Amino acid sequence: RKKEHFVISTYFRDFWEFVKGDKHRVAFSLKTGLAVMIVSLLLLISQPYEVFSANIIYAVLTVIVMFEYTVGATLIRGFNRASGSLLAGICALTVIQIILVTSHAAEPYIIGVSIFLIAVVTSLVKLWPPLVPYEHCFRVILFTYCLLIDSAYRNTNPVFSALSRLYCIGIGAVVGVLVNVLVFPIWAGEQLHRELIASFHAVADSLQGCVKKYLNSDGSENIVFSQSMTDDFPYEPSFQNCRAILDSSARIDFLANSAKWEPPHGRFQLSYPWSQYVKVVSILRHCAYEVMALNGCLKSEIQAMYCMKLVAEPEIHEAARRATELLRQLANDLSSMKHNPGETIILLKSVHYSMYQLQESVEFNSILFATLRNNFLGNLTDCYNTPKTDAYTNDILKSEEIIESPRGEEGPQLHQLPSIEDQETEAGVKIDSHEIFRRAKYLGSMEALSFSTFVSLLIKFVSRLDHLVDSVDELSKLAKFKDNSIV
Amino acid sequence: RKKEHFVISTYFRDFWEFVKGDKHRVAFSLKTGLAVMIVSLLLLISQPYEVFSANIIYAVLTVIVMFEYTVGATLIRGFNRASGSLLAGICALTVIQIILVTSHAAEPYIIGVSIFLIAVVTSLVKLWPPLVPYEHCFRVILFTYCLLIDSAYRNTNPVFSALSRLYCIGIGAVVGVLVNVLVFPIWAGEQLHRELIASFHAVADSLQGCVKKYLNSDGSENIVFSQSMTDDFPYEPSFQNCRAILDSSARIDFLANSAKWEPPHGRFQLSYPWSQYVKVVSILRHCAYEVMALNGCLKSEIQAMYCMKLVAEPEIHEAARRATELLRQLANDLSSMKHNPGETIILLKSVHYSMYQLQESVEFNSILFATLRNNFLGNLTDCYNTPKTDAYTNDILKSEEIIESPRGEEGPQLHQLPSIEDQETEAGVKIDSHEIFRRAKYLGSMEALSFSTFVSLLIKFVSRLDHLVDSVDELSKLAKFKDNSIV
Repeated sequence: RKKEHFVISTYFRDFWEFVKGDKHRVAFSLKTGLAVMIVSLLLLISQPYEVFSANIIYAVLTVIVMFEYTVGATLIRGFNRASGSLLAGICALTVIQIILVTSHAAEPYIIGVSIFLIAVVTSLVKLWPPLVPYEHCFRVILFTYCLLIDSAYRNTNPVFSALSRLYCIGIGAVVGVLVNVLVFPIWAGEQLHRELIASFHAVADSLQGCVKKYLNSDGSENIVFSQSMTDDFPYEPSFQNCRAILDSSARIDFLANSAKWEPPHGRFQLSYPWSQYVKVVSILRHCAYEVMALNGCLKSEIQAMYCMKLVAEPEIHEAARRATELLRQLANDLSSMKHNPGETIILLKSVHYSMYQLQESVEFNSILFATLRNNFLGNLTDCYNTPKTDAYTNDILKSEEIIESPRGEEGPQLHQLPSIEDQETEAGVKIDSHEIFRRAKYLGSMEALSFSTFVSLLIKFVSRLDHLVDSVDELSKLAKFKDNSIV
Repeated sequence: RKKEHFVISTYFRDFWEFVKGDKHRVAFSLKTGLAVMIVSLLLLISQPYEVFSANIIYAVLTVIVMFEYTVGATLIRGFNRASGSLLAGICALTVIQIILVTSHAAEPYIIGVSIFLIAVVTSLVKLWPPLVPYEHCFRVILFTYCLLIDSAYRNTNPVFSALSRLYCIGIGAVVGVLVNVLVFPIWAGEQLHRELIASFHAVADSLQGCVKKYLNSDGSENIVFSQSMTDDFPYEPSFQNCRAILDSSARIDFLANSAKWEPPHGRFQLSYPWSQYVKVVSILRHCAYEVMALNGCLKSEIQAMYCMKLVAEPEIHEAARRATELLRQLANDLSSMKHNPGETIILLKSVHYSMYQLQESVEFNSILFATLRNNFLGNLTDCYNTPKTDAYTNDILKSEEIIESPRGEEGPQLHQLPSIEDQETEAGVKIDSHEIFRRAKYLGSMEALSFSTFVSLLIKFVSRLDHLVDSVDELSKLAKFKDNSIV
């Protein structure tokens, strides 16, 4: 019993933290309460009730259905509702006119068939992909049509009754929109802007964290990593934030669509280029893919030799540092809505230059390693077959030992090929010394491959930065950011 | 005018194609029509109208709001609606009891405040992430509460009136669910099953297409590719299908959630492991990430030497062929709901074996290339500084020419480093012969890197296949697939 109490109090604390986290949330709920209360006043005061009678409830229902978190989303809902109600009104008034001229006995049949037809058409049309965004509109058509036809049936003045319901829906829509826009408005555009900046920082953080971890890891903790099936670091906020960008596409599209409906507000003037935001985020998402792939390198069963990393460490570190700096610079530009294209280009050039240095160093080291390993393995095979130990082999053995020493045990890393080993032991093939050398060579090549994968992913990330800088430049032009290079 | 007519007829044709594409769509729209018509009969016939009076319209509205495409989604909506209505009913009846014992003058104030409070609480709570899936439920609470309170106000028998509305909502919910489940049911589970199988084929198709294109391309058409900002091949259905998997996460989650609510049907027995489908798709999504990255290799500015590909072609081709075969085998197993773990393991082993051969060949070739290029460049520098042409250098020059010949022009591929070139020409640094050799070497190393990236992405793809096979094995166990290895 005490434990249960504890769980509930945890939930309450979580909820309280959530509410405290963003004052917009409380504002939204108070706004909803205000809007619903204003229309329900129409219900409680007797004058409007005398005009619209029981239909006033539809004003309340309209407010409830229409009220969304952001101004843009509410306007989209309002548009759907208004156009849906209008179309339904036209249909209903047409059918009512038909009913008025036909016999009373035919009335239910006409109504029944018309409801069936409208239900079939709206529910078929709303499945069509180009019209899926207007799904709500088609639901409203059917909904309102039924409301209006119902009010017309069994009424002495069907047209008046139907129009009365339509007016009530209109009143609800107007109250909903006015309260949402005028009282503490929550702009979708503002949210999109903040989310874009946060995404830049998330990619920068994740890149920094990943490169740091890659350079620090000596490959000994890989066994734990390789257990999990997917590239997931559940306990790292920077990784999680970066991952969230990959799945953000639907939310960003929705925010941008909502933002387009919003009137100019704050720093965002008329016809602000919201669709360019979607483009920037989409390119940033591709950068995030590369960062995720870099993170994936941390967990692969085969790791680059620690010494290989050690040799190229300054270059990798420098390249990542500069790329992060560029990302943060772009985020700051967006945040202050000032942009200096010249400065970004200089930063971009410095990133490219550090990548160039990294590749130089990799090229140099890889040839060195390949030659060393080749000689070493060749000589070792010889000395195993015909036992002779000259000074030369000893030398290479020693140098190889120094290089290999910080790598931890070899065992778990052989796991990459469990199936072949199983196959061979099952078949009872004796693994001879040649086989062992072949495997050692194979593992060495895998390690080199793992390292070059990390580097080439970094290169690809940097090549994406070109596009990212271009897209931010375009955004700054379209949105008329201040050019602070002149100041 | 004629052109406009043409556009409209195109739309109609598109729509017609869409309708013809899946008979479920027509079935759904006819079902909606049927359900709405059944409840509107209650409206048109006089007996139910006498019992429930105008409240019968809420049955119609409930059907319209609740009716979703799949059975599972309708049941979820129904659950939200039922629990929301119940909670609203409890609140409303409590407030009505309070009103009945207080003075008549206080009535509007109590109602107004209670509506405000419920609006504030529901709209705040529905923003909380753990409760976001039940957003509809909270909207229903507010909606129904207003309906019930409205019916109670100005009524001689408030409790009876409120219950009458509640019954109507119940009738609508029951009719909606019955029609949706009993008449031509569209199962979310069935859709999820088909989508999973289609995803396997999409990844297999895309892998096949990508490897084929990689091996056939000689690097000459890269200039066109590199213009676009993102890894997109808009005119390739197999690529588009694979890409769609990356964004499918929300839809798959929704389908799996819906499927969990569905009663056993067809081949899917009680407590069928739908959540395992989500897991399999998520691992398949990681495979799709790798295929997308492989596709990205097709478009990178720096391409592997054609001859490098040529030498490893049989191995790459073989590895891709076997991996594709494995994917199709898994898809067939899922489709027939029979599974033979032994056979899949044999296929998986053969994939690993072909990867092993590929890596052997890469290792062999890369050392050859590195040595060749090194000797060549070294000798070339010497011969440039002290002009002597011996037979040895000539030989290597010739062999290098043969190797390099099918690569097309060098020019556009230098674009990888535009910034550094600009920097240097701006600074007026004279690029001497050493610099040229350094660049040639650098480009060579980039090409080798590009090739090894392709190979290591392929390796990563194959290592994901292990997890994929495991997850399908687990699914087949949980879902009690027939083991056709015994037959």
